[in-house]
Amino acid sequence: MTKINSVAVVGGTHGNEFSGIYLLRKWKNNLNLISRGSFSVQTVFANPKAHEENKRYVDSDLNRQFDIAELANLDLANYEQSRAKVINNQLGPKGDAKTDFIIDLHNTTSNMGPSLILLQSDEFNCKMGAYVKSRMPEAVVVFEDHASVEEHYFLSSITPQGVIVEIGPQPQSVIRQDVLDWMEDMTRHILDYVDLHNTNALPELPSSYEAFEYKETLKLPENENGERIGMVHKNVQDGDFKQLNSGDPIFTLFDGSEISWEGDYEAYPHFINEAAYYDNNLAMSLAKKRIVEV
Amino acid sequence: MTKINSVAVVGGTHGNEFSGIYLLRKWKNNLNLISRGSFSVQTVFANPKAHEENKRYVDSDLNRQFDIAELANLDLANYEQSRAKVINNQLGPKGDAKTDFIIDLHNTTSNMGPSLILLQSDEFNCKMGAYVKSRMPEAVVVFEDHASVEEHYFLSSITPQGVIVEIGPQPQSVIRQDVLDWMEDMTRHILDYVDLHNTNALPELPSSYEAFEYKETLKLPENENGERIGMVHKNVQDGDFKQLNSGDPIFTLFDGSEISWEGDYEAYPHFINEAAYYDNNLAMSLAKKRIVEV
Repeated sequence: MTKINSVAVVGGTHGNEFSGIYLLRKWKNNLNLISRGSFSVQTVFANPKAHEENKRYVDSDLNRQFDIAELANLDLANYEQSRAKVINNQLGPKGDAKTDFIIDLHNTTSNMGPSLILLQSDEFNCKMGAYVKSRMPEAVVVFEDHASVEEHYFLSSITPQGVIVEIGPQPQSVIRQDVLDWMEDMTRHILDYVDLHNTNALPELPSSYEAFEYKETLKLPENENGERIGMVHKNVQDGDFKQLNSGDPIFTLFDGSEISWEGDYEAYPHFINEAAYYDNNLAMSLAKKRIVEV
Repeated sequence: MTKINSVAVVGGTHGNEFSGIYLLRKWKNNLNLISRGSFSVQTVFANPKAHEENKRYVDSDLNRQFDIAELANLDLANYEQSRAKVINNQLGPKGDAKTDFIIDLHNTTSNMGPSLILLQSDEFNCKMGAYVKSRMPEAVVVFEDHASVEEHYFLSSITPQGVIVEIGPQPQSVIRQDVLDWMEDMTRHILDYVDLHNTNALPELPSSYEAFEYKETLKLPENENGERIGMVHKNVQDGDFKQLNSGDPIFTLFDGSEISWEGDYEAYPHFINEAAYYDNNLAMSLAKKRIVEV
């Protein structure tokens, strides 16, 4: 990994995820809090109109608009599709970006604690996870490296290196102090890591650590008309990153009956009952555990 | 108290409070679950358009539209003002209602557990609190009897007798099983109570119980321009109905400084950091403890 010269810290990609938006306001007048000696830093308020309207998005989810072909398709012109093109122009363009590293700040209603989502498992990312966990033992590292960075359509995929900071539980349109503090801490540790990487000053890191890798997404139970007929089982609710075994109840139908998970691996649910995912009737993501060698 | 002949169970007064809406769907096909021998029952889906748009309200908060003068003012004609007039016509009219009793089902993002909000402290209501708590020890009873029922502008104030079932914590636009179960249980106990009252068959009740009475509402810290400059202190977050003493930290400002509560009574915060109250920059309500003699 070469040196990271320019960093963008992005908040408000979803307008009702308040922590990043409030941190941007704080940092605007205190840029020293996110500045480091070895790179330049800028902040980006990604979706101000959605925040004004106090919702996740106006027309479509901004954090799903960074597919290279779609960025190039000028017929895709709704608010978020337009914002994506503007942000891609400002920080990218994807594939040949003028920015080296993006930190995109998100909240979830799920009980995920302070989570660091990494889109690839190269040495730079693996060490970042080790560094952040060494500074913040409650941090959870999740690899979403089932697709290449370029194939991902997240905002942070504009740059070859980029992370998603995902902190919960926080209801939409609320600021919780614990969640805000976690987000600020994790962002600080990531920026420190980039600076230490740049200056060849990384401390000794643990030789391995426990992380998670994304496997699949489960839908909420539906009937043949696509209507929701059940909910996340109360034993699973709030149990993000707790082990789920084949045969464990996972959904309760509104008629009172239960559905068990019949999988062939030890699963670790996360994004459990995330409010924003009801749009697509998603119940949770499942991960496998991964031991990362540093 | 005379006999209760007609009951309305209302859900979806706020379109993104899902528990009541899902229970209405369940009961629609199983009216026996909410029917009792001594009264007739109907269900009302109060704000379907807000639910369709997945928000609390379309134009204004429906649960603030039941002021008698405003109900009579035909110039107040936005969506919720119109819905209020329709519902008042269906269940009321307020002041001379054809319905005897309303149960209005709500969720909060605050950690209030299963709460029963009573708008007056007459014998019927005091005994209802005792009955519900005897069947459901985790239930919390809150009296909002600082104003008369007629002076209240809540939907449930259409009828001389009416209650608000308020269950959390649940993020907006989510269904949690624990919250749904609590709401169904509390509604069942209330309906049982009304039936036992009607048939003079109430069991022996505890001679007194602990409840809360609404005192005041606190705003989030603002600067001179009315901009939010702080948040609920992490020590208070999730501590609904836990004692707050003068001198306890209550807010953390975004600059890191803290504000303490300087009150002259033992306060019990609730509706702490409720998402919907950010519209008016409200931080929480405070109650005093009250021992209710039955």
